[in-house]
Amino acid sequence: MRSHYCADLVTLEEGSELSIAGWVHRRRDLGGLIFLQIRDRSGIVQVTVEPDQGDVFAAADQLRSEFVVVVKGKLRKRPENMVNKDMATGAIEVVADHIECLNAAETPAILIDGHEEVSEETRLKYRYLDLRRPEMTEKFLFRTKVTSALRRYLDEQGFLDMETPILTKATPEGARDYLVPSRTHKGSFFALPQSPQLFKQLLMMSGFDRYYQVVRCFRDEDLRADRQPEFTQLDIETSFMDEEGIMGLMETMIRKLFSELLSVELPNPFPRMPYSEAMEKYGSDKPDLRVDMPIHTVDDLVKDVDFKVFSGPALDDNGRVGVLNLKGGAANVSRKNIDEYTKFVSVYGAKGLAFIKVNDRAAGLDGLQSPIVKFLSAEAAEAILQRVDAESGDILFFGSDTSKVVADALGALRLKLANEHNLLRDEWQPLWVVDFPMFEEEDGQLQALHHPFTSPKELDPDALKANPTGTLSRAYDMVLNGCEVGGGSIRIHNMDLQQTIFDILGIEPQEAREKFGFLLDALKFGCPPHGGIAFGLDRLVMLMVGASSIRDVITFPKTTTAGCPLTEAPARVSEAQLKELGIAIEQKK
Amino acid sequence: MRSHYCADLVTLEEGSELSIAGWVHRRRDLGGLIFLQIRDRSGIVQVTVEPDQGDVFAAADQLRSEFVVVVKGKLRKRPENMVNKDMATGAIEVVADHIECLNAAETPAILIDGHEEVSEETRLKYRYLDLRRPEMTEKFLFRTKVTSALRRYLDEQGFLDMETPILTKATPEGARDYLVPSRTHKGSFFALPQSPQLFKQLLMMSGFDRYYQVVRCFRDEDLRADRQPEFTQLDIETSFMDEEGIMGLMETMIRKLFSELLSVELPNPFPRMPYSEAMEKYGSDKPDLRVDMPIHTVDDLVKDVDFKVFSGPALDDNGRVGVLNLKGGAANVSRKNIDEYTKFVSVYGAKGLAFIKVNDRAAGLDGLQSPIVKFLSAEAAEAILQRVDAESGDILFFGSDTSKVVADALGALRLKLANEHNLLRDEWQPLWVVDFPMFEEEDGQLQALHHPFTSPKELDPDALKANPTGTLSRAYDMVLNGCEVGGGSIRIHNMDLQQTIFDILGIEPQEAREKFGFLLDALKFGCPPHGGIAFGLDRLVMLMVGASSIRDVITFPKTTTAGCPLTEAPARVSEAQLKELGIAIEQKK
Repeated sequence: MRSHYCADLVTLEEGSELSIAGWVHRRRDLGGLIFLQIRDRSGIVQVTVEPDQGDVFAAADQLRSEFVVVVKGKLRKRPENMVNKDMATGAIEVVADHIECLNAAETPAILIDGHEEVSEETRLKYRYLDLRRPEMTEKFLFRTKVTSALRRYLDEQGFLDMETPILTKATPEGARDYLVPSRTHKGSFFALPQSPQLFKQLLMMSGFDRYYQVVRCFRDEDLRADRQPEFTQLDIETSFMDEEGIMGLMETMIRKLFSELLSVELPNPFPRMPYSEAMEKYGSDKPDLRVDMPIHTVDDLVKDVDFKVFSGPALDDNGRVGVLNLKGGAANVSRKNIDEYTKFVSVYGAKGLAFIKVNDRAAGLDGLQSPIVKFLSAEAAEAILQRVDAESGDILFFGSDTSKVVADALGALRLKLANEHNLLRDEWQPLWVVDFPMFEEEDGQLQALHHPFTSPKELDPDALKANPTGTLSRAYDMVLNGCEVGGGSIRIHNMDLQQTIFDILGIEPQEAREKFGFLLDALKFGCPPHGGIAFGLDRLVMLMVGASSIRDVITFPKTTTAGCPLTEAPARVSEAQLKELGIAIEQKK
Repeated sequence: MRSHYCADLVTLEEGSELSIAGWVHRRRDLGGLIFLQIRDRSGIVQVTVEPDQGDVFAAADQLRSEFVVVVKGKLRKRPENMVNKDMATGAIEVVADHIECLNAAETPAILIDGHEEVSEETRLKYRYLDLRRPEMTEKFLFRTKVTSALRRYLDEQGFLDMETPILTKATPEGARDYLVPSRTHKGSFFALPQSPQLFKQLLMMSGFDRYYQVVRCFRDEDLRADRQPEFTQLDIETSFMDEEGIMGLMETMIRKLFSELLSVELPNPFPRMPYSEAMEKYGSDKPDLRVDMPIHTVDDLVKDVDFKVFSGPALDDNGRVGVLNLKGGAANVSRKNIDEYTKFVSVYGAKGLAFIKVNDRAAGLDGLQSPIVKFLSAEAAEAILQRVDAESGDILFFGSDTSKVVADALGALRLKLANEHNLLRDEWQPLWVVDFPMFEEEDGQLQALHHPFTSPKELDPDALKANPTGTLSRAYDMVLNGCEVGGGSIRIHNMDLQQTIFDILGIEPQEAREKFGFLLDALKFGCPPHGGIAFGLDRLVMLMVGASSIRDVITFPKTTTAGCPLTEAPARVSEAQLKELGIAIEQKK
């Protein structure tokens, strides 16, 4: 029914015969003529119908917004003074010979042509209308290009696109699993995978050498703007390659992607930063390098001051006094702002937020405006100002607490200040964060910072057991503009080492056997050295298209309560279905 | 660690430096030398280590089957008389300079190098070993080529690779759903999709025009050799195109696939057969055209015979007398075979299986050997023999019952005879089956033969309601060698027509609203004409690689009781998890 997509008509000669199929985006009647804007996935073109055109005019006259039509006609270049420079096809129009209406439309519940504010609930309920809006269509066309470019690169590099099960066993990522009751094994449940981690490792043990998959993963967590119950991962694993090899391949892939689709040249190589530096300087394991403003440490400068709030943490091994310098911010930060920031950092456990406005850098203590200046000697104040490169007009914020609270609070405040004061440079800042600790302590219990299959750098069991928290892992995260877009590691390929890690994590042999017995077995039968990475595809696309939520790049997303307003899933099911599965709904007491 | 895959070494010059990484497939000690066969995903190559090689020899001497190694060395062409013609790399070998063992292996539970019979349970439990067997590795390498070729074609044709939800609402395919309890909406359940049917239609209504997806689908059915709880579909939908357009694109895709990967040229165009002809001539809606032997109808020839078993069905509008002629089979079919065939057809409801052996075609009734000949006149017998092209040495089998029983019984017997008597030609026989009835009657209730969104050919509501069983649909199935590999249709794009179909199916307005309200809504807002198809990817790959079960082309399949011997899924979960989901396991009474 169609000879061309609307956007492709610009390639045609004047007078070319053509047919297009799509929706009436807009209709205008002017000077006896009818102007139709016809929309398809590629874009919009204007169709002109003149009053002397009998049947064609009559057909056009019946059309309303979102009617589905096929238009046959001829291409006409618009005269210079009629060219619409805001439209990609603004230099041409179609003179209609024939118009067929294939379907009518009621007045759409969402304006396709326009910018009205519509609630997200309505957008999701009428998602098929929301997706027709050109700005949404474009995001999804872009998404298909991203997937396709990534696949092409991985295919070229000899990676095999292989599938792994969705109905499987609980995986070790640690989030809550979605469960599926089994009918044939009543009382037992499948878990939907949080990632194909163990299966991709098994594929390496099966000898497939290089694997990738664009794969759905599931986490039953409470949702935030960038979380969904189901999300898509670009999952990758390879054998016989170390972290240098894998990181090199992966950053080349991302560089090519940005170059091809956004004409953006990312740095080569990506910078790298140890986890410890990221935490100290940016208070985050995914620093956003589009803004400067590191967290300065001034422990050595304040440990002797007569101000316990500073000297206490400065003298404590687990404590820290950190400072952010908001350059030129003194004039733009009001008392009210400071109160708000104080409340903001309290969410991260900070008990207060000391500040210093540097009104006159040359005037010593007299040039500083702050409730805490009275506790500082002139020398200490001067040393701090030097440490943070303070100039007149700056404002300094202090975090003084455990190292963790200071990192969390000032790390978050740094991003908030950057946003509010427009300090985020319009640029792409990729980064590898490396040298992660193998374990972190939570409530006195060691946890794997990544997952328990990550290889430590220390391979000696005794050394590992003697100092687990001092051990670094062979993990690497790819960070882009403050978002973790990918994370991976070299995995353990030796059974004894895997057993040692389980021991350190306090996983009892029986539990290890039950949960991961098949992996321990597999490690005995000739497991190659291997490692990999997984990218959050939704998040990567979200960043690339500049969307504010992954919901804008997922065709049919769930709400924050994990429901679908369109299909009204989840839904009640029949008693008979439950009975067949051998389960019952618990009655509320 | 690797310069080349093993199979690629044949491209190198004599003396080239190389390194390979893989598994010790086999080790032989001969005349003081050690011969290692090293295996990677590409194949196997021989590595030779000589006794005067000190460290290298010592390292080689430690190696056993399935040890993981990196070998560095030089390429050597084998002398003419040492060439192993059974090996793809049999004309070369690697002279090792350096051998590093990366991991040891216990004696594998499955022999990788060999052809011992292993139970399927063991193969699945140690799937990572099973998959290392070269014949299995090859199947999966082929599968990745199939997926990749299909994607490439669809990308070129402007189809967009888009994703649809896995946590969704019950879909209308009619098989049993897998359910997922919702934690945030207690007492409600998601269903895993049996296909993305409604979502792909919604994508058409969203204006994406051409969609495809390699997508996991789920059916909680009792399993057979070619069924799995989760399976993979190549799912396709397009707007503004009729069945001719879609079938043309799809058969071109399959032709290209076979040409590229198997060097097989399929017919252009694929033959087409109406459903009614397929059922009458082959007793199946997916006839296997690799064998001739149609079911002949002889109703007109036996309606007057004095043999109720024949004349009854022949005179009944719903009855039929059908005949299979097994050419040259008289000598090879014993009384015992016939008893077995009689039992075989009884499964399909046939009450008996009359036969005639044509011993001497020229001798009239005297030349025929059969318990039923005495009931036939010479004229009737002669007419039947003529109708079925009988010659001396043939044996005829009769089905005499309702048309359905005759089709089922003789359709199945036809394939059984073809298999047992080696009548299946070694060729590829694709076919479109078209002109399906829109509805079928089951227990007095009308059911959609495909699904209720399939467009009928008759669009007038009154005519449809007056004669639903006489209405054909716009559905088409692609059949290959007797397997349905794809099925699709033009969909309904008009709300009134959709409502009429629901009415005819006896779906109450409230039920229609609850289940498909969102679709009915969507049809009101400018739905384009659209249609599509879905291919069973596992089955297509199974056919192409000549596997006997889809389990051989799925990485980690389930057993026939829907369990995974490797991970031991499904598994028990904790009471706490169930409590969070608001469900309980029903106690057995």
